[in-house]
Amino acid sequence: MSEKLWRIYLSGEIHTDWRDEIAKGVEGASLPVSLSAPVTNHSASDDCGVAILGPEPDKGWHDRKGALMNSIRTKTLIEEADIVVVRFGDMYKQWNAAFDAGMAAALGKSLIVMHPPEHAHALKEVCAASSAVVERPDQVVEILRYVIRAELKGY
Amino acid sequence: MSEKLWRIYLSGEIHTDWRDEIAKGVEGASLPVSLSAPVTNHSASDDCGVAILGPEPDKGWHDRKGALMNSIRTKTLIEEADIVVVRFGDMYKQWNAAFDAGMAAALGKSLIVMHPPEHAHALKEVCAASSAVVERPDQVVEILRYVIRAELKGY
Amino acid sequence: MSEKLWRIYLSGEIHTDWRDEIAKGVEGASLPVSLSAPVTNHSASDDCGVAILGPEPDKGWHDRKGALMNSIRTKTLIEEADIVVVRFGDMYKQWNAAFDAGMAAALGKSLIVMHPPEHAHALKEVCAASSAVVERPDQVVEILRYVIRAELKGY
Amino acid sequence: MSEKLWRIYLSGEIHTDWRDEIAKGVEGASLPVSLSAPVTNHSASDDCGVAILGPEPDKGWHDRKGALMNSIRTKTLIEEADIVVVRFGDMYKQWNAAFDAGMAAALGKSLIVMHPPEHAHALKEVCAASSAVVERPDQVVEILRYVIRAELKGY
Amino acid sequence: MSEKLWRIYLSGEIHTDWRDEIAKGVEGASLPVSLSAPVTNHSASDDCGVAILGPEPDKGWHDRKGALMNSIRTKTLIEEADIVVVRFGDMYKQWNAAFDAGMAAALGKSLIVMHPPEHAHALKEVCAASSAVVERPDQVVEILRYVIRAELKGY
Amino acid sequence: MSEKLWRIYLSGEIHTDWRDEIAKGVEGASLPVSLSAPVTNHSASDDCGVAILGPEPDKGWHDRKGALMNSIRTKTLIEEADIVVVRFGDMYKQWNAAFDAGMAAALGKSLIVMHPPEHAHALKEVCAASSAVVERPDQVVEILRYVIRAELKGY
Amino acid sequence: MSEKLWRIYLSGEIHTDWRDEIAKGVEGASLPVSLSAPVTNHSASDDCGVAILGPEPDKGWHDRKGALMNSIRTKTLIEEADIVVVRFGDMYKQWNAAFDAGMAAALGKSLIVMHPPEHAHALKEVCAASSAVVERPDQVVEILRYVIRAELKGY
Amino acid sequence: MSEKLWRIYLSGEIHTDWRDEIAKGVEGASLPVSLSAPVTNHSASDDCGVAILGPEPDKGWHDRKGALMNSIRTKTLIEEADIVVVRFGDMYKQWNAAFDAGMAAALGKSLIVMHPPEHAHALKEVCAASSAVVERPDQVVEILRYVIRAELKGY
Repeated sequence: MSEKLWRIYLSGEIHTDWRDEIAKGVEGASLPVSLSAPVTNHSASDDCGVAILGPEPDKGWHDRKGALMNSIRTKTLIEEADIVVVRFGDMYKQWNAAFDAGMAAALGKSLIVMHPPEHAHALKEVCAASSAVVERPDQVVEILRYVIRAELKGY
Repeated sequence: MSEKLWRIYLSGEIHTDWRDEIAKGVEGASLPVSLSAPVTNHSASDDCGVAILGPEPDKGWHDRKGALMNSIRTKTLIEEADIVVVRFGDMYKQWNAAFDAGMAAALGKSLIVMHPPEHAHALKEVCAASSAVVERPDQVVEILRYVIRAELKGY
Repeated sequence: MSEKLWRIYLSGEIHTDWRDEIAKGVEGASLPVSLSAPVTNHSASDDCGVAILGPEPDKGWHDRKGALMNSIRTKTLIEEADIVVVRFGDMYKQWNAAFDAGMAAALGKSLIVMHPPEHAHALKEVCAASSAVVERPDQVVEILRYVIRAELKGY
Repeated sequence: MSEKLWRIYLSGEIHTDWRDEIAKGVEGASLPVSLSAPVTNHSASDDCGVAILGPEPDKGWHDRKGALMNSIRTKTLIEEADIVVVRFGDMYKQWNAAFDAGMAAALGKSLIVMHPPEHAHALKEVCAASSAVVERPDQVVEILRYVIRAELKGY
Repeated sequence: MSEKLWRIYLSGEIHTDWRDEIAKGVEGASLPVSLSAPVTNHSASDDCGVAILGPEPDKGWHDRKGALMNSIRTKTLIEEADIVVVRFGDMYKQWNAAFDAGMAAALGKSLIVMHPPEHAHALKEVCAASSAVVERPDQVVEILRYVIRAELKGY
Repeated sequence: MSEKLWRIYLSGEIHTDWRDEIAKGVEGASLPVSLSAPVTNHSASDDCGVAILGPEPDKGWHDRKGALMNSIRTKTLIEEADIVVVRFGDMYKQWNAAFDAGMAAALGKSLIVMHPPEHAHALKEVCAASSAVVERPDQVVEILRYVIRAELKGY
Repeated sequence: MSEKLWRIYLSGEIHTDWRDEIAKGVEGASLPVSLSAPVTNHSASDDCGVAILGPEPDKGWHDRKGALMNSIRTKTLIEEADIVVVRFGDMYKQWNAAFDAGMAAALGKSLIVMHPPEHAHALKEVCAASSAVVERPDQVVEILRYVIRAELKGY
Repeated sequence: MSEKLWRIYLSGEIHTDWRDEIAKGVEGASLPVSLSAPVTNHSASDDCGVAILGPEPDKGWHDRKGALMNSIRTKTLIEEADIVVVRFGDMYKQWNAAFDAGMAAALGKSLIVMHPPEHAHALKEVCAASSAVVERPDQVVEILRYVIRAELKGY
């Protein structure tokens, strides 16, 4: 009745369907979880500032307007989250993912990092601030099942 | 079902219907938003203190009593807000608007500033602390649609 | 629908029915308010510690056990309150009322002080930290009506 | 209607049914209470990390992975609690119980310590930071009844 | 060389020389202590506001101006203190002393309460929030000697 | 020897020599005070961003760069201050002054407001958050003398 | 000249000379370090409360008075520390050590845990919150040398 | 005499001499600045954990031990800094740099980002949280001269 709703923010890579996999897993397990995320439409995320506030001839200010507008969403949701999951993918610099992880760590959030094995050394500072390091979305679901419901396969 | 309710505080100018325009836009878009604001009845806002607590012959203390009583509302609502929108209009000194913006900035709130173009230079410190600068209420609605629903016209 | 519930803590004097008057006024005005208070049964408040945890031959430790147990309630409710109302009555030392006011001030709560006129000078430090000073419960109801609903008689 | 839900975290000893006794007592008294606890399945608690994240040949890292995963649950629930109850039993080192008590104290939570009489001296620093020291689960229920409902047997 | 300087704020009663006794004791023991206090000149403390800011015909505002000016000193020094000592004397209401104690408690300061035995019951909430309750200034000096230097007579 | 150094930030109007008057008064009274202020060279303050980071054809971004750079100074110094003095002069919009006052209030700083009498009503919200309202720099010096040294002329 | 002084609190076991070893090592390396600790005179630590505040016939209150007095020292020093080192020895329950570790973790301090290998499993939650786990005092000195001076043998 | 010492943390790229250039510039301008940085000896930074705490056969735990030990230094210094400068170079993933920037932003530090022009788009979220974006170390020195001394070439 008064079951706690766990708020999970899913930061980082936006070009695969990992958030959907977590959403399905969470729904399948009927976990009391509220998932949130940055805007995952890449071009909307790039252009939101100028689309609403007016165009900028300079690419730098075009980006600045967009990044500031996106920060309204990301900062609010990270600050409200119980757990922040940050996924590093195969491409791009992904500095915004690491930036979110730094914010989460400084705010005392529980941090879960997802990355392919080859990034382990480069992510060692980020992972050292985390409570779990995983490779796949289903592991996030398993963690949530255990952390929230105390359910662990085979136990 | 467990959708986050976004709390938006609308500070500043009280002589036009900009808050109504935002309210209509937000309702039209069915956004999960709770709008709040200072008391916008100017004379009630000026006289509330003496009306309830007793008259003051000195205008300064008349004002003090009212301002302190209004602060119960404004401080509570600003502290609870996710986003603070501050509108600077054409008239008056509007120092309370800038004061609210300073509070919002110090509390780490996402700040949106609305002002006519001619005030840009005088508001540069306030705008530099904001996540977006707009001229019209419909832009606030567009920002909220994007930030909350990830909806952006044309994307 | 998503109207904010205002949490009001009513601290201080426990020998008159001022809390009931505020409760009736708030109910009469249908204000979205949750009132809370310390335990107002004086002897229960004095003896709760030893009644549950076991007797103490020394009056000082009898009192300590009770005061610590009461603090579980008072501290939690003050920390959650939006507004703390502290009433100073005619009798007793009432240091716990002033103590609650100090806590409320340090926590940044909006403070309303209620006291008979003859206590004005002795309460000047407490009142200087408040947003309103009143004499009667109906004034608290009027403040809440104004602060929450923007309703002010005659405006 | 808008009655406050009190969040109680039950930390410490996991080999007796003291949490069930509190749960029954709280239910019997119809208290508006949400009880939470660490995972009380001892082996699941030990192995959760490796079960989900992959095996570790070294027992120390096996433990580290598990303890970090458990911290997602315990830290979140302690930070949200109004009251933290910590029970010290007869066996084991129980350093995690004392660690939770230290966290609760530093976070300003109301702390209730439950322990058999023979541990009194060894727990004096922990108890000095608490609001009540009890020996039995029914005393916790009585405290909650008093603190939440102002009900005290015989008063 | 880099010995910590302990900052001690001495709040409360201003009509006896208890602060001097503590100062002498601390100096005699060469403790690394910085003592601070409210303005102890009673009439200056009452009149400071109007003396600097201009007269007020109304006694209430005369007091308000003074209390607000004094708060610049007291709030700053309490917030900086490691330990707050609050003395309750034989006379007056002393609500400002209890108010300071409440602030100190909410700010997490270590609190020492000094009072004559007959005030014990009336001060039970204040004392329950303290780390020590004493009757005489020399006990404060002994506490400081022990806490800072680990020196205890006979040990 | 270990006298506290009081840190005072002097915000607001930059076209008269009021800061010098305070500096002289403070020096004349040998007060242990560290005065700080925004950059008071108006054109440097406007152009600092583009001068160091590179030119902007758009006036708005020219201003943004400057305001952000100035915020490094002002935010750091306000956060460190014990007391923030904000002066409103006769000219300009002075929204940055009110913004600083809002920041100071939200950070719990003691606030002193200086303004000519004709601005009283427009500044009522700002003044209601202050500990003192003055008209002249010598009054600030008198306040500091009283608050720091407990010296008050004629007492 | 303006080299940072690192404040290290050494909590836990008080029956061996491990603090002296760290002190010598730190002095030998001329590290800019201020070491602090609880009172390590066991009987003074037990009796300080009654020795200064007056005797208690009940052992429990004897202990309470002492533990509260010791908390003035320990809480202040832990809150000021940059690094908290907690040593678990071979004897006693050492719940106060784990309690200090919990406080340090909740306050965001860097935590170093020292313990003999056989305690590893029982301390897994405490160690999981730490930045380093060591067995010997010289390792603490090496960590400080590296962290403060960037000196590491062989590099 | 009591001039404020500004604490600047220089995060990020460790393979060029940009920190030395800033140090020289700051020294040349006699600025009251304390510069700090992570350990810039790359192999020491990688191996510190195992060198002091003992070897790990698994590369992941080797890294974890090192990263946690480095965090003692970096977290402490970032939390103490007034300004955090983060430099992104030409090589490596540099996620720890972005992580530091996220921490700095969440802690409310003034952030300066240094990067070559080609990284502008990838760093847009990081730069949007900053107070200045520069390309060269001498610009950092110019900012410090302006922010601390109000000196700006040509003004």
